[in-house]
Amino acid sequence: MKVLVINCGSSSLKYQLIDMTTEEALAEGLVERIGIEGSILTQKVTGRDKYIVKNPLNDHQDAIELVLKSLVDEKFGVIKSMNEISAVGHRVVHGGEKYSNSVLADETVMKNIEEFIKLAPLHNPPNIIGIKACKELMPNTPMVCVFDTAFHQTMPEKAYIYPLPYEFYEQDHIRRYGFHGTSHKYVANKVAEVMKEKIEELKIVTCHLGNGVSITAVDGGKSVDTTMGFTPLAGTIMGSRCGDIDPAIVTYLVKEKKYSIDEVNEILNKKSGILGVSGVGTDFRDIRSAIGNNNDRAILATDIFGYHIKKQIGAYAAVMGGIDAIVFTAGIGEHAPEVRIRALTGLEFIGIKLDEEKNDNQNVGNGLVISSEDSKVKIFVIPTNEELMIAKETLALIQK
Amino acid sequence: MKVLVINCGSSSLKYQLIDMTTEEALAEGLVERIGIEGSILTQKVTGRDKYIVKNPLNDHQDAIELVLKSLVDEKFGVIKSMNEISAVGHRVVHGGEKYSNSVLADETVMKNIEEFIKLAPLHNPPNIIGIKACKELMPNTPMVCVFDTAFHQTMPEKAYIYPLPYEFYEQDHIRRYGFHGTSHKYVANKVAEVMKEKIEELKIVTCHLGNGVSITAVDGGKSVDTTMGFTPLAGTIMGSRCGDIDPAIVTYLVKEKKYSIDEVNEILNKKSGILGVSGVGTDFRDIRSAIGNNNDRAILATDIFGYHIKKQIGAYAAVMGGIDAIVFTAGIGEHAPEVRIRALTGLEFIGIKLDEEKNDNQNVGNGLVISSEDSKVKIFVIPTNEELMIAKETLALIQK
Repeated sequence: MKVLVINCGSSSLKYQLIDMTTEEALAEGLVERIGIEGSILTQKVTGRDKYIVKNPLNDHQDAIELVLKSLVDEKFGVIKSMNEISAVGHRVVHGGEKYSNSVLADETVMKNIEEFIKLAPLHNPPNIIGIKACKELMPNTPMVCVFDTAFHQTMPEKAYIYPLPYEFYEQDHIRRYGFHGTSHKYVANKVAEVMKEKIEELKIVTCHLGNGVSITAVDGGKSVDTTMGFTPLAGTIMGSRCGDIDPAIVTYLVKEKKYSIDEVNEILNKKSGILGVSGVGTDFRDIRSAIGNNNDRAILATDIFGYHIKKQIGAYAAVMGGIDAIVFTAGIGEHAPEVRIRALTGLEFIGIKLDEEKNDNQNVGNGLVISSEDSKVKIFVIPTNEELMIAKETLALIQK
Repeated sequence: MKVLVINCGSSSLKYQLIDMTTEEALAEGLVERIGIEGSILTQKVTGRDKYIVKNPLNDHQDAIELVLKSLVDEKFGVIKSMNEISAVGHRVVHGGEKYSNSVLADETVMKNIEEFIKLAPLHNPPNIIGIKACKELMPNTPMVCVFDTAFHQTMPEKAYIYPLPYEFYEQDHIRRYGFHGTSHKYVANKVAEVMKEKIEELKIVTCHLGNGVSITAVDGGKSVDTTMGFTPLAGTIMGSRCGDIDPAIVTYLVKEKKYSIDEVNEILNKKSGILGVSGVGTDFRDIRSAIGNNNDRAILATDIFGYHIKKQIGAYAAVMGGIDAIVFTAGIGEHAPEVRIRALTGLEFIGIKLDEEKNDNQNVGNGLVISSEDSKVKIFVIPTNEELMIAKETLALIQK
């Protein structure tokens, strides 16, 4: 069985064709500049040279057509016919309150995802376009929607209701949704697997630290709280996003500093976070070399990053009544030992003991335990694999 | 030695005359409707009937004149002459980054407090008017400013710098300041006193739960983090304030719901929190009776209140590397066992064990231990006494 995983952005498309027997990607690729001059597809297959196609692509349908062509290409492809693709799993960012699981992309589902555009104006539209294009080209292949928000639908009311007028929830659906659900679910399950424990019996804090950052309390395999909120702007400090701040700062910037609402949005999403504090950039490699040059603000940005995660670990330990494991994933989570050490030092009182040597190990990104032998709480670094998780969800659904 | 404590609001003034030998209030009073028709002073002296004066009061100077007159009144007063007042301690809300301690209200100080009006536009102006009026009437009595923000000036950078463009801090002084400092300092010191321990050796979480709510991590007697931020809107859920929310909700309300910035400010400050969620009100007595009638939203509001405090206790335990004591104070902190039980249950893993019977005790508001005998972390309910703290700070300063 082979599952194609599609992740559509506004002008890009990531894909993987996964062999579900081995759970390995037969091919993975990226289409960029869709609808823009200079469209390009790059496909990677283990053991081969990169396959690059430069071709004008007017829209996502063109892009998907090219993806399918590249997958069945006699010389560069990995399958003989499109019929080998048993199903397509689509990443969909926002499933509102309707979807706590993956679903087949039938008419009702498509209508609902369209309704949720108002909750995810940047993300749901390209997701919809991608599904529609695939349906057109592969009318007999099941299309499955895997939502970023679905995993967090198990949160209790006290975790997802904001202290705002209740009508904002009832009428405008303003609540905490949480994102990165596929990643949190994947690494939490991976932890249980590695620990050889039932996930139902584990209390795990999952730290997805990438461009976006979200931390989740996973109690018995279920998300019970998460840092991102109504939008992916909320939570702890991120690359260029501010996370939670005093909401009065937003009104202050408009009223006193005379910024427009659009400018404020731009500042909070694009000019804040690690970039805003350090003045250096969003990439931790740049932050690291600035720290090497004793750049105080780069140090401060790193300190804040670790500090926010530490506070969140404490908060989620309180929420779950303890922790059995902590897992770090995604770019920064996998590759920034300086963040992990700041987040974890001083938490010995709840049984967290980092092995500093293991933490500094460059190979840690491949998935290792970084807690010391006698640490009550196990600490892991596990690369996330959202594509595989989407493929697994897709397979499970079509096999039902 | 007698110290007069003055706390000026926009149209009101609270005062206490405290005998520093006994640390007891000789008289306490409230002047309301200053500059509005129907001005009224109410003065209480232990063992006597309330003394009420209805008199037109044009401004705070009129009000303070009446306060002094009432204190020296032959029949209803408690002192013979104004000369018995050794000093006046003024509550000042915002001391910016300049003041980490109380100071004499000299010209420079007054100028700075005026500059901080932009940080506390509702609070600093009446504070200034009060000090000026007192100076006018008691030119030879030392005036001392005790700042709400001062106690939190010991926070480290990583706790007070927001993940925003750094210029917002440098140029516009946007940072976490924290409030209720006098109260946090008072109850933290009281805890050390009751525990017969040196405050330098204690890690305390102080929960000031009144109309405004703020929670502080007090490590070795110093504030190292607190929930309120740039303004008193930030932090956990409050009576009618929302606390920290996804900042994108603010821009969403303006952009999508077409509220003006002033309307949003009004909503977040006056129509959110316990009031917004429950739809019942801000007073816990009303919430309690609604819960008695199985009002789901009143239950939810109480759940959220307790849940936010619990998360904060966990976060601050992480920040300090453990906790020795937790203290609840102010209206809700002292009188709402249903909030305390929600905040504290499930924290046994860090040595927190509530004695439910003690927690329910109606007299707990007078200051009692509510942790069980074998609780590693001691839990206290201690009535706050900001006036006494202001008086103590004032005395300490003039005795220097």
